Amino acid sequence: MQKNISFYEAIDFILKSQISLLGREKVVFSDALGRVLAQDIIAKSNMPKFPTSSMDGYAFCFADFPRLLSEGLFLDGDNPAGADVEFSLKPASAIKTFTGSRMPKNSDTILLVEYSVCKEGKVFLSQDAPVIKKGDWVRCVGENYCSGDVLLKRGDFIGAYEIGLLADLNEVFVEVFRKPKVAILTGGSEIIEVGENRDCENMIYSVNNHLLKAMVTSMGGEGILYPIMPDKKETIKELMSEAFRDCDILLSTGGMSMGDYDFTQQAIAELCEVVFKGVRIKPGKPFGYALYHQDQKIKHLLALPGSPNSAALSFYLFGSVVFAKMFGITYEHQVLKAILSEDVIRTDSRMEFRVCDLEIFEGRYYANFSKKRIFQSSVINNLCGKSALVILQENGENLHKGDEVDMIIFKNFL
Amino acid sequence: MQKNISFYEAIDFILKSQISLLGREKVVFSDALGRVLAQDIIAKSNMPKFPTSSMDGYAFCFADFPRLLSEGLFLDGDNPAGADVEFSLKPASAIKTFTGSRMPKNSDTILLVEYSVCKEGKVFLSQDAPVIKKGDWVRCVGENYCSGDVLLKRGDFIGAYEIGLLADLNEVFVEVFRKPKVAILTGGSEIIEVGENRDCENMIYSVNNHLLKAMVTSMGGEGILYPIMPDKKETIKELMSEAFRDCDILLSTGGMSMGDYDFTQQAIAELCEVVFKGVRIKPGKPFGYALYHQDQKIKHLLALPGSPNSAALSFYLFGSVVFAKMFGITYEHQVLKAILSEDVIRTDSRMEFRVCDLEIFEGRYYANFSKKRIFQSSVINNLCGKSALVILQENGENLHKGDEVDMIIFKNFL
Repeated sequence: MQKNISFYEAIDFILKSQISLLGREKVVFSDALGRVLAQDIIAKSNMPKFPTSSMDGYAFCFADFPRLLSEGLFLDGDNPAGADVEFSLKPASAIKTFTGSRMPKNSDTILLVEYSVCKEGKVFLSQDAPVIKKGDWVRCVGENYCSGDVLLKRGDFIGAYEIGLLADLNEVFVEVFRKPKVAILTGGSEIIEVGENRDCENMIYSVNNHLLKAMVTSMGGEGILYPIMPDKKETIKELMSEAFRDCDILLSTGGMSMGDYDFTQQAIAELCEVVFKGVRIKPGKPFGYALYHQDQKIKHLLALPGSPNSAALSFYLFGSVVFAKMFGITYEHQVLKAILSEDVIRTDSRMEFRVCDLEIFEGRYYANFSKKRIFQSSVINNLCGKSALVILQENGENLHKGDEVDMIIFKNFL
Repeated sequence: MQKNISFYEAIDFILKSQISLLGREKVVFSDALGRVLAQDIIAKSNMPKFPTSSMDGYAFCFADFPRLLSEGLFLDGDNPAGADVEFSLKPASAIKTFTGSRMPKNSDTILLVEYSVCKEGKVFLSQDAPVIKKGDWVRCVGENYCSGDVLLKRGDFIGAYEIGLLADLNEVFVEVFRKPKVAILTGGSEIIEVGENRDCENMIYSVNNHLLKAMVTSMGGEGILYPIMPDKKETIKELMSEAFRDCDILLSTGGMSMGDYDFTQQAIAELCEVVFKGVRIKPGKPFGYALYHQDQKIKHLLALPGSPNSAALSFYLFGSVVFAKMFGITYEHQVLKAILSEDVIRTDSRMEFRVCDLEIFEGRYYANFSKKRIFQSSVINNLCGKSALVILQENGENLHKGDEVDMIIFKNFL
């Protein structure tokens, strides 16, 4: 077991550990919003299949352009979009053609309705028309995509626009990765469930389990809440064993520091192979990562600190890497630049993820700490709203207002 | 009716139109993920309520520090987190106290376990201890928030961290805005439903309805799909009337250009008060906005262009403003700076939202067009993946590689 390692070492240990791909499931494409593709999506035909008009107008052959200017072109009927037949253009003629219509045979250009004048069965160019070029307003075969093009890849996130593309491709059913099942076990003898009524004034409501479940949902997983863990090693072990049976990832919170009542780490040590414990980051120092061997499978335990802020951020920083690996992709935290709105005084040699309000001014990000309460790991309200994490490197120096710093928008999940 | 107005005029017309707040509904806080708050959330008590230890260690009175260094302090029992009683510190003593425990009366400082040495019933400072200060590792009353603090506001989006805060506050039920109901009516005689089998090769699959429904879902609304509109004015009017009865917003696509078969705009003109039609933007030029008066209510119609790309982007740009107003907030598109990876040649005087791949290099955004097919409004695959919209202003000049431009990440919904 590694102890007290750096953030980058911790990420490396997770990337190197054996994390299997999730199983697949088939869903109707329109139910795939927010899921991750488990297959490549390949175009089966060209789009468009035929030269197609992209506007309403008159299809003609550009070789007839001089005649359009002088004698006009004979109007030869309408070619509505979705027509059953392929129209064919006669010499010196034009066919009225609509947005989405297949171009008539022998035609190559669309004269827009607004630049046309019709009289006595003929169409002419209007006087205010701009320059007309061969091929105007005609979409070529395969302009969107060609047969065989890989349009989406395994591991791609399916958002609204991907749903649109799947509809375009007539992919009625698609294979997505199963949602990772995440068991959430939170502990602490001072914790009571939300809504619960207890006389004792020293109790606090269970934040971690609901916070983590919502984060898991936002990351495309399925969170399962277990009863609150008592301060009793054997019961913790039983609960964990039960949870491991049904999940891919187990999250525990609390019980990872040095207190006598911290049985969670003892239970973990007896059940699992602990990869590392302790990371030189703030918040999140007690974070641990362990593997649970079950038959041929390996389940993953993220032992999160007990304070909600620490639990949330260490799950965000490390959990996203585990999730991504299960989806077959390599996740990197998207690091962006922000400008400091005030000086930053370092109080710790650890690498720090210091929460700030993220403001945008003239298109640039600014990190503002003025409305954040002291940077305690228990201040969950700090994480709400438009917040981001300023990354302060290990053993770093104080920074000054106006300096550019690295920042992660921890509101963006996978 | 205004015609062919600028983008900013169009946004202004929407902001000025009468858009009522959505109704409220009460949901269990953990079901509120992705919803918008319809009430302020105010702290009912201080957090923490009492001075609380933030680490495991020994609570003592800092006035006894010299004694801790010399004779040591008497160990006087354990004070576990969530204890029913309030402990009281005797003179020259220390009480073992844990993360989350209420500080014993008369104590003011925590000596961390790791910097303590216990022998013969007394606790001493370890030799490797750092400087100890009065108040160390004690969380003050109200450090997170104080009674009466407004912690979340009406109109705030509820993400995972807000769920955590609601749990912390024991807000079991919260009032959220009802999801806006959005009727989606797409048209075009060349359109067939996904999965439908037709002999005619000129048909294309219905992209718009599924694309828009997924966008509506991502924006926190509820999309309702209607049958594909035929090219028949009376039927369109009937469908629209039916849809208006049940929705807050109606989206129509197609039928807004100059073709003879474009009955949609005739139907809209007969049913609604058209506020404007035609915006000098690319894509999205035919976009129109209309109001439908029903008893005392006003319903909103966004007439989107028929090409999927134009429909999606004009819905994104204008629909987000309507949505936000229904949620009681003023939405502004988040404009950020990106650096051009190549020259940009303007081909149109209209304001343009040109889709690019959004790349991040050394913490900065770069706009790359090289993998985008030509900027046709029908190329839906352009919108997939990590894309953004570069904003090219009206009558703007060509831009050069390395220039900084304005950009919108149109993947971020409300």
